[in-house]
Amino acid sequence: MKEIIQNLQNKRPLVHCITNKVTMNDCANAILAVNGSPIMADDEKEVEDITTGCASLVINLGTLSQNTIPSMIKATRKANQLQHPVVLDPVGVGASRLRQEVAFALLEEHIDVIKGNASEIKMMKDHVGLSQGVDVHENDQITEDNIDEYIQDIQKFCQKMDTIVVVTGKIDLVVGKEGAYVIRNGCAQMSRITGTGCMLGSIIGAFVGANKEHMLKATALAVALMGYSGEQAYQKILEEKKGLGSMHMYLIDYLSMCEKSLKKGGLKIEKR
Amino acid sequence: MKEIIQNLQNKRPLVHCITNKVTMNDCANAILAVNGSPIMADDEKEVEDITTGCASLVINLGTLSQNTIPSMIKATRKANQLQHPVVLDPVGVGASRLRQEVAFALLEEHIDVIKGNASEIKMMKDHVGLSQGVDVHENDQITEDNIDEYIQDIQKFCQKMDTIVVVTGKIDLVVGKEGAYVIRNGCAQMSRITGTGCMLGSIIGAFVGANKEHMLKATALAVALMGYSGEQAYQKILEEKKGLGSMHMYLIDYLSMCEKSLKKGGLKIEKR
Amino acid sequence: MKEIIQNLQNKRPLVHCITNKVTMNDCANAILAVNGSPIMADDEKEVEDITTGCASLVINLGTLSQNTIPSMIKATRKANQLQHPVVLDPVGVGASRLRQEVAFALLEEHIDVIKGNASEIKMMKDHVGLSQGVDVHENDQITEDNIDEYIQDIQKFCQKMDTIVVVTGKIDLVVGKEGAYVIRNGCAQMSRITGTGCMLGSIIGAFVGANKEHMLKATALAVALMGYSGEQAYQKILEEKKGLGSMHMYLIDYLSMCEKSLKKGGLKIEKR
Repeated sequence: MKEIIQNLQNKRPLVHCITNKVTMNDCANAILAVNGSPIMADDEKEVEDITTGCASLVINLGTLSQNTIPSMIKATRKANQLQHPVVLDPVGVGASRLRQEVAFALLEEHIDVIKGNASEIKMMKDHVGLSQGVDVHENDQITEDNIDEYIQDIQKFCQKMDTIVVVTGKIDLVVGKEGAYVIRNGCAQMSRITGTGCMLGSIIGAFVGANKEHMLKATALAVALMGYSGEQAYQKILEEKKGLGSMHMYLIDYLSMCEKSLKKGGLKIEKR
Repeated sequence: MKEIIQNLQNKRPLVHCITNKVTMNDCANAILAVNGSPIMADDEKEVEDITTGCASLVINLGTLSQNTIPSMIKATRKANQLQHPVVLDPVGVGASRLRQEVAFALLEEHIDVIKGNASEIKMMKDHVGLSQGVDVHENDQITEDNIDEYIQDIQKFCQKMDTIVVVTGKIDLVVGKEGAYVIRNGCAQMSRITGTGCMLGSIIGAFVGANKEHMLKATALAVALMGYSGEQAYQKILEEKKGLGSMHMYLIDYLSMCEKSLKKGGLKIEKR
Repeated sequence: MKEIIQNLQNKRPLVHCITNKVTMNDCANAILAVNGSPIMADDEKEVEDITTGCASLVINLGTLSQNTIPSMIKATRKANQLQHPVVLDPVGVGASRLRQEVAFALLEEHIDVIKGNASEIKMMKDHVGLSQGVDVHENDQITEDNIDEYIQDIQKFCQKMDTIVVVTGKIDLVVGKEGAYVIRNGCAQMSRITGTGCMLGSIIGAFVGANKEHMLKATALAVALMGYSGEQAYQKILEEKKGLGSMHMYLIDYLSMCEKSLKKGGLKIEKR
């Protein structure tokens, strides 16, 4: 795991993000915090130039616009040509038909990592699902009881699509064609800060951009570090009797201290 | 007032925001802080789907774009059909003809709450007014001397339009067809953080979304809590000898501690 | 230098920004922190109205969009007509052909201040250069050895274009037709917070908007204050064992304490 962090420090991967307007700033700062270098660009006329100069591409459907849909497709194709890893975050894919159309169109290209909550992943996998807004539907939650079954089901999708799937929730799963990780970091309060999911998608872009040979492991580490950063941020506001604004900043504080987090031994990553 | 907060906690209302790019992140975090759930979506092709799944709609004219004007109209009509409360924040409506056109077009639909500073409200009410940028014009200020007269004048507009009007300033007014509240929370330093007005508009969306039966009271409480959060944030940076960046975060800290604020008894809400 | 700060406090200049989506919020807060008043507006149909009501215009190419290119040109022309200072921040101009086209089109108008890193300025000056993403290319760096030569070269460009050029880096240069300043504030960690460059461009807009008679000196002071704010923010997170999220907020804290910074005597501005 230490090697994965070192690759980030040495390579400082450029990450091209076509992402949503709400959390762009946090995503850029999260990428910088883990030693990547973000470039947000979504105009159809420049995305191919930008992607060419980058190490990876992150597509996030959070505030989808007709203007940027062709940019998403073009950039993904260019990244595929150049074998740059592509991360897809189908935010709120169940909330509108437009998001579904775009998400499925992107699945026609090669996607290296798909990250979503259980409802979003279900929609991507089965082309069905119901969700309101951007939060997970109660019935879709992963529990200790259904975890192995759930992994097996996702793994079929991974094999079919040649992709890695990250399912976020109380328990996080990182599933690839040949293995899976179960991650038990994070805390409920993270869902009361906008963009924690988007930030995770963005840093996965940096982690896989610098670790193309070990994408599954790199993704799992990104997920665990994000969760652990959230835990530490929450612990800190409890101690200081502060609120969610401070937690938001502390989250990025701890992301920028990845190495220390590794040493502290708080990461709860289990290989299955 | 406690019941209004409890409704937010129990219902966690989804708030659809078509809002400006500058303060989107803060607005989303403010909504989350008061136990709402934000979804920012402004593409014409998805706004009706999104609004349908939400409890309320917030329209903010802050960084108006021709692309999103039809989205604003469509979403408002859909919300009207479904009887979802609609909040309009006509940011800087006096600063350009485009903003005026859109603001008046939106007044053709049903708006439940209009929130602005005295200059913006004057423009909405009288179709005239002058403003530079997004700040209030000196001559338009509400003072202790003109307050009753001012409320009477606004109330006519409320009756005509079947709407609630919030006028922000040193003294804040929340005026409905049948009553009014005068609120004396807040502090001058809040105007040196971008988006405090936008955040207020956004949390009003959450408050009325969870309290459709008591919109006037819910709006007044949102206004007072925002102001009191600002006061507390300013007090805290004075104690810690910090600046406006910290005040920005503390503002959201205190918004996320609504319940404590209620108990502290710092809310200065007067029924007229 | 004190007079420059006082002009900001007295005039509270309205700054029209057509800027990128990633760092808009920080740019607005930075302008407010130095006692300016920001208005972000980029729709073609309103930019002329907005610019007319403002004291200066800031154009930033960070997340360029075809929709806003005509807005940039129109606003610049209107600002030129009204003799409002125009600041151009050609973010990542080497990263795509689209950015180059727009940057060169803007050079056809009158630009009062061009701010970039050494690679961006080289591209603007020589119509050549290579860059990846938004960071400076190693070979383009200014060092103590090449500094005088570098200033002379830039000065020719300033004379030709009747403009001020700011080159940011380990050493910052502010070069005008008749003089130059060398500034040695700032620290490396600032490049790990997104938007420190954009914030600088934005506050330059406020500084020159309030100091039209002393634009070179006002620009130099803005550069030094930004750098010194970064140094102080970094010092503070070292003391408090915090990370980049907190540094981001403290940066704006210190920007909002300009006057204190002046008094502390930490500004390292050398006239050449």
